[in-house]
Amino acid sequence: MQTFILSALCGCVALAFAYFLAIGIAKIKVTNAKMEEISNYIHQGAMAFLKREYKYLAVFIVILFIILSLAIDIFTAIAFVVGAIFSILAGYFGMQVATKANVRTAEAAKEGENPALKIAFSGGAVMGMCVVGLGVLGLSLLYILFNGKVIYLTGFGLGASSIALFARVGGGIYTKAADVGADLVGKVEAGIPEDDPRNPAVIADNVGDNVGDVAGMGADLFESYVGSLISAITLGTSLFSGKEGVTFPITLAMIGIIASIVGAIIARNSKGSNPQKSLNMGTYISGILTIIGTAVLSKVVFNDFKAFIAVASGLIVGLAIGKITEMYTSADYKSVKKIAAQSETGAATNIISGLSIGMLSTVFPIILIAIGILVAYFSMDGASDSTMGLYGIALSAIGMLSTTGLTVAVDAYGPIADNAGGIAEMSHMPKEVRQVTDKLDSVGNTTAAVAKGFAIGSAALTALALFASYAQAVDLKSIDILNPVTLSGVFIGGLLPFLFGALTMQSVGKAANQMVEEVRRQFKEIKGIMEEEAKPEYGKCVEISTAAALKEMLLPGILAIVIPILVGVLLGVEALAGLLAGAVVTGVLMAIMMANAGGAWDNAKKYIEGGAMGGKGSNSHKAAVVGDTVGDPFKDTSGPAMNILIKLMTIVALVFAPVLAQIGGVLLKLI
Amino acid sequence: MQTFILSALCGCVALAFAYFLAIGIAKIKVTNAKMEEISNYIHQGAMAFLKREYKYLAVFIVILFIILSLAIDIFTAIAFVVGAIFSILAGYFGMQVATKANVRTAEAAKEGENPALKIAFSGGAVMGMCVVGLGVLGLSLLYILFNGKVIYLTGFGLGASSIALFARVGGGIYTKAADVGADLVGKVEAGIPEDDPRNPAVIADNVGDNVGDVAGMGADLFESYVGSLISAITLGTSLFSGKEGVTFPITLAMIGIIASIVGAIIARNSKGSNPQKSLNMGTYISGILTIIGTAVLSKVVFNDFKAFIAVASGLIVGLAIGKITEMYTSADYKSVKKIAAQSETGAATNIISGLSIGMLSTVFPIILIAIGILVAYFSMDGASDSTMGLYGIALSAIGMLSTTGLTVAVDAYGPIADNAGGIAEMSHMPKEVRQVTDKLDSVGNTTAAVAKGFAIGSAALTALALFASYAQAVDLKSIDILNPVTLSGVFIGGLLPFLFGALTMQSVGKAANQMVEEVRRQFKEIKGIMEEEAKPEYGKCVEISTAAALKEMLLPGILAIVIPILVGVLLGVEALAGLLAGAVVTGVLMAIMMANAGGAWDNAKKYIEGGAMGGKGSNSHKAAVVGDTVGDPFKDTSGPAMNILIKLMTIVALVFAPVLAQIGGVLLKLI
Repeated sequence: MQTFILSALCGCVALAFAYFLAIGIAKIKVTNAKMEEISNYIHQGAMAFLKREYKYLAVFIVILFIILSLAIDIFTAIAFVVGAIFSILAGYFGMQVATKANVRTAEAAKEGENPALKIAFSGGAVMGMCVVGLGVLGLSLLYILFNGKVIYLTGFGLGASSIALFARVGGGIYTKAADVGADLVGKVEAGIPEDDPRNPAVIADNVGDNVGDVAGMGADLFESYVGSLISAITLGTSLFSGKEGVTFPITLAMIGIIASIVGAIIARNSKGSNPQKSLNMGTYISGILTIIGTAVLSKVVFNDFKAFIAVASGLIVGLAIGKITEMYTSADYKSVKKIAAQSETGAATNIISGLSIGMLSTVFPIILIAIGILVAYFSMDGASDSTMGLYGIALSAIGMLSTTGLTVAVDAYGPIADNAGGIAEMSHMPKEVRQVTDKLDSVGNTTAAVAKGFAIGSAALTALALFASYAQAVDLKSIDILNPVTLSGVFIGGLLPFLFGALTMQSVGKAANQMVEEVRRQFKEIKGIMEEEAKPEYGKCVEISTAAALKEMLLPGILAIVIPILVGVLLGVEALAGLLAGAVVTGVLMAIMMANAGGAWDNAKKYIEGGAMGGKGSNSHKAAVVGDTVGDPFKDTSGPAMNILIKLMTIVALVFAPVLAQIGGVLLKLI
Repeated sequence: MQTFILSALCGCVALAFAYFLAIGIAKIKVTNAKMEEISNYIHQGAMAFLKREYKYLAVFIVILFIILSLAIDIFTAIAFVVGAIFSILAGYFGMQVATKANVRTAEAAKEGENPALKIAFSGGAVMGMCVVGLGVLGLSLLYILFNGKVIYLTGFGLGASSIALFARVGGGIYTKAADVGADLVGKVEAGIPEDDPRNPAVIADNVGDNVGDVAGMGADLFESYVGSLISAITLGTSLFSGKEGVTFPITLAMIGIIASIVGAIIARNSKGSNPQKSLNMGTYISGILTIIGTAVLSKVVFNDFKAFIAVASGLIVGLAIGKITEMYTSADYKSVKKIAAQSETGAATNIISGLSIGMLSTVFPIILIAIGILVAYFSMDGASDSTMGLYGIALSAIGMLSTTGLTVAVDAYGPIADNAGGIAEMSHMPKEVRQVTDKLDSVGNTTAAVAKGFAIGSAALTALALFASYAQAVDLKSIDILNPVTLSGVFIGGLLPFLFGALTMQSVGKAANQMVEEVRRQFKEIKGIMEEEAKPEYGKCVEISTAAALKEMLLPGILAIVIPILVGVLLGVEALAGLLAGAVVTGVLMAIMMANAGGAWDNAKKYIEGGAMGGKGSNSHKAAVVGDTVGDPFKDTSGPAMNILIKLMTIVALVFAPVLAQIGGVLLKLI
């Protein structure tokens, strides 16, 4: 119990650090009135989205609270509400600060790269620290409150997952509806550049960066983070007679938090020549600190290094997947150049090439995940005790996620820098300012791609760890795919990511169409927009993205919750296990394929814009723009939605396990 | 044994019917010299491809024969050679006749739709009857030769699968390299219409239709057909003390052959107003005859209707998948219209829309397959005897494939009609001739899409049936995905269709690029091509497609054979079982997604060409052409390659099962 008091304090330390960073950002004065005005639009747009989202969430939380109290028990229901609220708080704090850090980054960019990097990174670090701080704090408080009854903690995970669904899927639809809408009319039809204040959808586009990439990514990793901890804690409780199975993961989380804070301080204050190097430096140092700390911890708690190997396998696989992602999506490597070259024969060859590279890019990450699973399992003596082996897999998930605080910081820095560039452009800042923010933004593109790979890898391991917990909860000793009921589950699970991908892509299409019509209407009806004599109605576009995102999110969201329960009730717990396994496999494959194809298309376009294959305005460029537009929903909506889908479905299965174990398989009992 | 003498005779009846049809086609005189000339080019091109392919195959067959004799036994090796040769013969006969039927269809089109349909369909039926005739004949002879030792029959399946790999993957690369190459330079750059004799790649394009859609599809279904029979026969031998487990499937095959012949005669001679109706009529009648025959057979052999239900479930699922495929790919339904509408905002929205419809179209076929599996399993009392249940799944695969003779006929009819149109165009026939062939061709497009759905569904069931045989062969009582070794196998298996898809798409891209350069060179260097004063060098383009197809096929082909053996040796038979399951699930999903997206893009383009959304030459049309080009390798190369991949890997696993059961899992033994 003392460990959890300590970990609660450690969570508070992370939050205090976030507060300290936020104060530092707020202190900076914005001197330019135009910049302040635009920044306010973005801030208000983001907050308007959050408020509307919260209304939906309130209804959702109440309904699920009632269901959980009736079907499961009141404690799980309470944990669910706490999990949901903590995830909401993390998103709220992160967005509040991010939408203030953007304009201040632009302000600091006047003085050069280093000051601007410091602000943008600090803004991202607030989100990162809130994620890990609130995650550990929430879990620790509930553990103490429930006096160590870990079964109720699954509710906390369900709360986090539900909010992640809304934040990630809704945010993904929001940001791409605005982006595609703004581009199709603004760039293509009206011929005005990106981030032009005359474009009515420009504020919605900038809000979208925050909603999707800051709040969405944060909620996604919050879910993975608490999910992996819950899985290790529940498996650890049943495995050991003492408390070591629980002490180890929560102490590991503390080590990760401290390491992340150290890494963040280093990244923030390093005065290197190159922002990418500063961020890398912070990441590597926090990784090394975690590894050292884990080795010591493993020796102290278990008196061997087995747990250390399991944790390290996750951490190393996570870093390796990040690096592979970079190799497939950065213009420094041959894949992106190949797509650029294929753009010379038109849009069709650009698309074929991008899709095939996306598919190809699944190979090494999946093999690494497979190796990671095997190492983690066998390092914990899985060969002789399978539950112990599964505990090893949960530890490796925590290992991958231990430095989440820093990972989110490095990722959320990107959209802040991107926003800063937009604000500088819209308020007609001198060219040098834009150059600084562009530099930061381009670094942000790489970090975003890497973070996406990381989010996928961690989602896979977290889902597998939760899957193991589910199997234990419904008392499945084996999940036999020679059994056709299980096999049917695998097939149905396998198709869900395809269904989810289809629905979310169609949602983006629908919402973008509405946006296109609104922007066209404003260009036609508001006289003087093009001469900058009249202001566009930014609010209307923000409203469209907000409404569309929330509406379109409902169907996939409901499916993700209802289908596992339905399959469990009708076909039983084994079919549900098959469903989860099938969904994890195709979900991870589709997530990697979509994220990397999207990232590669994006950078192939930028590579051409940099002067290759005829440069901007050439036919190659036009072809590359098609690829980039296809890639938008791939990488920012449908791809990330897969992470949520697989985690949410496994946690739903885990929470409802007691009920399903009792009444599951109604249909089969009829035979 | 008498049953197998009878079934060998029945196979001969199918071959005799094929011979009778071929004689009928050969009798028709070609009166137009120009037509004859062009038809000869196509015939020679197709035969040149086959000859080159056979050289590769000879080397391959010898190598694998040696490996099999040493690693397994000489009888399996002999069966392998017989299977390979029979598959080659089916393809050879089918292509010989198809490349004669095309010009005669054009000839008959002068007299109207019905005579032309009769020739085109007869040409297709030769391929169909060769597939089922040689399949049943080969299996029966080997069964008699080996005196009922069914274990050796797996070699026959491996032979069929190996040839299918070459025919389907190589053929797919051939046809799309020629098609994309011809279109990119001919239509887009030089502005000449489809099937214009001035295009140097036009003959290669027409040869490709035969190589890909006649020989490739035939080999694919030959593999499924014999694979499902082998699986049922091996499971059936071990299950029953008497011979009923073997008698039932082979007699069922005989019923299917007779029903197919009756259906073919009806389709061929019906004088309906509409070619689609004639084909449907034949299909339905042969389906009904098979159903009735199976009911009687089930009662006679097993004295109940359980086996009948298993068979019927496969047959019905097959028909239903065909219908669903039609709904997603025909312009009569809303999906294709939606893609056409989305083309109005450009290529990007066309692509997004097509991909999402492809993904969405996986839902119902997969659910149907899952239901089919469950019905087949439980109808054969799988709940109490799991091997009996798996036998039920094998029977349902045979059920789906029982009318293969007719399915191949209806499908192979399409490329013959397509070729006839090309020949009419190139030899400047009167417009009315082209109108008739166009009508037949458009019907062929639908039947092709339906046949693709059918090929995928049958590949899934056949692979699952073989998978069950494999599990029995290596004595796996359960395949537990909670075991991380198996789970790793599932992940690796899941990624293989993505890898295969990426490799085959890139191959098409590479080969098409070579074709583009050659066509450009000829336009530049051969004076008078455009004025039809000089002839293009058709042979050079045929040569490029041939060489590229054979070269590019090697890597994916070797991977499909080596990876399952490698995983089996290193990680053991359970990991290999996981790999097969993972590959079947994602393979079927990707196959459906790619086939249906490709078909829908194709028909969306045709729908616009018919006058919708601004018609031919509009911006919508340009966008739709991009979608169609992306869809070409989707539907004709990578998608169908998935069918082969999953069947080939399971049959490889099954053949090498005895070795793997002994030495499998080398890596794990080190731990």
